[in-house]
Amino acid sequence: MKPVKVGLLGLGTVGTGVVRIVEGHQEDLQNQAGSPIHVEKILVQNKAKARSLTIDESKLTEDPWDIIADPEIDVIVEVMGGVEHTRTYLLEAIARGKSIVTANKDLMALHGPEILEAAKNNGCDVLYEASVAGGIPIIRTLIEGFSSDRIIKIMGIVNGTTNYILTKMSQEGASYDDVLKEAQQLGYAEADPTSDVEGLDAARKMTILSTLGFRTNVALDDVSVQGISSVSKEDILYAKRLGYEVKLLGIAECQDDQISVSVQPTMVKQSHPIASVNGVFNAVYVHGEAVGETMFYGAGAGELPTATSVVSDLVAVIKNKKLGVAGRQGAMVYKEKKLKTDDQISSKYFILLHVDDRAGVLARITQVFAEYEVSLESVLQQPNPNIPEAEIIIITHDASKAAVQQVLRSFESLETVRRIKSVYRVEG
Amino acid sequence: MKPVKVGLLGLGTVGTGVVRIVEGHQEDLQNQAGSPIHVEKILVQNKAKARSLTIDESKLTEDPWDIIADPEIDVIVEVMGGVEHTRTYLLEAIARGKSIVTANKDLMALHGPEILEAAKNNGCDVLYEASVAGGIPIIRTLIEGFSSDRIIKIMGIVNGTTNYILTKMSQEGASYDDVLKEAQQLGYAEADPTSDVEGLDAARKMTILSTLGFRTNVALDDVSVQGISSVSKEDILYAKRLGYEVKLLGIAECQDDQISVSVQPTMVKQSHPIASVNGVFNAVYVHGEAVGETMFYGAGAGELPTATSVVSDLVAVIKNKKLGVAGRQGAMVYKEKKLKTDDQISSKYFILLHVDDRAGVLARITQVFAEYEVSLESVLQQPNPNIPEAEIIIITHDASKAAVQQVLRSFESLETVRRIKSVYRVEG
Repeated sequence: MKPVKVGLLGLGTVGTGVVRIVEGHQEDLQNQAGSPIHVEKILVQNKAKARSLTIDESKLTEDPWDIIADPEIDVIVEVMGGVEHTRTYLLEAIARGKSIVTANKDLMALHGPEILEAAKNNGCDVLYEASVAGGIPIIRTLIEGFSSDRIIKIMGIVNGTTNYILTKMSQEGASYDDVLKEAQQLGYAEADPTSDVEGLDAARKMTILSTLGFRTNVALDDVSVQGISSVSKEDILYAKRLGYEVKLLGIAECQDDQISVSVQPTMVKQSHPIASVNGVFNAVYVHGEAVGETMFYGAGAGELPTATSVVSDLVAVIKNKKLGVAGRQGAMVYKEKKLKTDDQISSKYFILLHVDDRAGVLARITQVFAEYEVSLESVLQQPNPNIPEAEIIIITHDASKAAVQQVLRSFESLETVRRIKSVYRVEG
Repeated sequence: MKPVKVGLLGLGTVGTGVVRIVEGHQEDLQNQAGSPIHVEKILVQNKAKARSLTIDESKLTEDPWDIIADPEIDVIVEVMGGVEHTRTYLLEAIARGKSIVTANKDLMALHGPEILEAAKNNGCDVLYEASVAGGIPIIRTLIEGFSSDRIIKIMGIVNGTTNYILTKMSQEGASYDDVLKEAQQLGYAEADPTSDVEGLDAARKMTILSTLGFRTNVALDDVSVQGISSVSKEDILYAKRLGYEVKLLGIAECQDDQISVSVQPTMVKQSHPIASVNGVFNAVYVHGEAVGETMFYGAGAGELPTATSVVSDLVAVIKNKKLGVAGRQGAMVYKEKKLKTDDQISSKYFILLHVDDRAGVLARITQVFAEYEVSLESVLQQPNPNIPEAEIIIITHDASKAAVQQVLRSFESLETVRRIKSVYRVEG
């Protein structure tokens, strides 16, 4: 049987996992895909570098065109990362009729529509299961498993680094800075953790998930993003006392074809299944109109989990190629995008205020909420021995984002409110 | 665009859901499948019966051959249940070149290989996502999402009725009989609950899941089955005290291509994600060699969740038909079946004994474990005011099923052991 020849762009963590699985599971893969799979050429930055894997050196190249322009290469597996030059390489490969498997969330979040369109026009597949939530087959689930349903809401813990940090803060009462330092030492956080802790990585993944879930092209700019660097151990303590955990949640919602997508630290009721997803694990909760509540849980990163998704995509690409249906899987995105405005986005909020400890203050504050028609689920005023002021903890009923912002603006000009200590979206 | 004509066998709960989704989501489905979908004819037992759905009466028929033999019908959706006559109908439909979507776990567990083989030979698809775990797309996940991986273990809460009963017993300290009665009143349990509570329904689903996960034809007879009717509220209380929940788990394992599949009430460590799956919800935990631990959670039954899976399969069947690849999806099962013997099946066990309350008894009992090389994780002897004897609670380390059975047989002939009160497999 003629083997399928794969060109691998990148031999970092995931690339190494891809080679290991393709070699280690060859017999199974041959049964699945219908022919042997050979990793024929591998793009690396430095051929001389020491590796954890024994690889025939003649396969390595430092020149991407050795792979992209090689007519013998059937499929490109892209696990090198990067955006602009990677986009160029993949578009060139597609123009030459090669199907693509990629794990590149940045690329797909920014240029997904262009790349998918090019693939369709050239009769190629582009599959990207590994770009979101590592080993969890959530992209397949949204495209195929729920093709008949209308997705109302997607909530994702899609960044392992921040979930590790928040879990440690919650379980050990530790501060953000201390846990971040530890995570960096353990290799769970990068030396420059900005993309993770500021929510950008999660936002890219939510762009991909919401595009597939709502069948409309969501752009990265459509996602409102807030990271976890301002989450304090006190906030987490208050959350726990009230029965919540603080999680960095991507939340995508759709009502009447109007959508909103955001990433922010969120207080999640402990009884909600996503509240107990801890450490570096990822989970995606999907609420469909017909199917109801579902959740998909697993490793969000790592050499072999992510490589599982890449190689499963590779099997699918090879099958499609053999069946002559590459690039013919039909429209996944066909709806006009309508974004919600801030007064259409509704949720509960947790608000912690430090206020002057004297008569009438609580009345004044609750009056502000009433003015903007934000109704309250619970209000707790208590002394805090660590500060000269009193503390007020408020959980609202569902309220529009716009109204809550107006309330907060009013507080800023209210002298008795010394500071707005924390504001969290509340779910569950 | 020429509509796809669907023949629906059965208009019970799931059939009604199928009609609702096909009608309600018509525009979306047309975009997904590439043509309108019409439910053209519906097989019912009694045309005159009152229904919750308004249906053009001319579509209804009481004669299956009106549908099976109609050359205009492109796809059959089978949601009528039953085994022997249903098998005949579907094989006849396949012989006429019709693809099938079915929710019938009994049929697929008993005759899956025959039906899939017939479909392949006739260029038809048979999809059956709805046959296991309702709305959770677990069959797709095993076939496609994890095609590149080797599955080591599948654990499933795949029967909502028993999970509802065990959850209620755990949360309310109620007895099995009381909760079963309540479940029957609420419609969560059938008047004759045997198939659910004795584990047969779960065994059928585990037959399907293990066949796909291990890529070998597992038969229903290969599954060892024990139901929940002997689970007492005391057992659940002991489990909770030790940090466990009692769940009816389907457990399928594969090491070195040797497999075992069983269904039994199991004590699951509370920290394991499957331990907190409560009520009528289902979950399937999949451990892959490369992907690690994953879990898929959702509604296991119900009109719309199950119909979501049926209609998503329908979309896939229609797409395959249009692409000309029906029946050409390749081998899902290609391994020789090798079953583990009882001395190869290993797990921890919980054993509760009532013993004579006198010197030397514990020594004698632990000696029996030692004789059969079963080592112990924990042993607790305590008085029980409700019985004249003492109680001994043992949790073993991993031990072979055969050895534990020998230990239990020894206890039966040991005078000081008054009764073997409970034995549970332990997971997590």
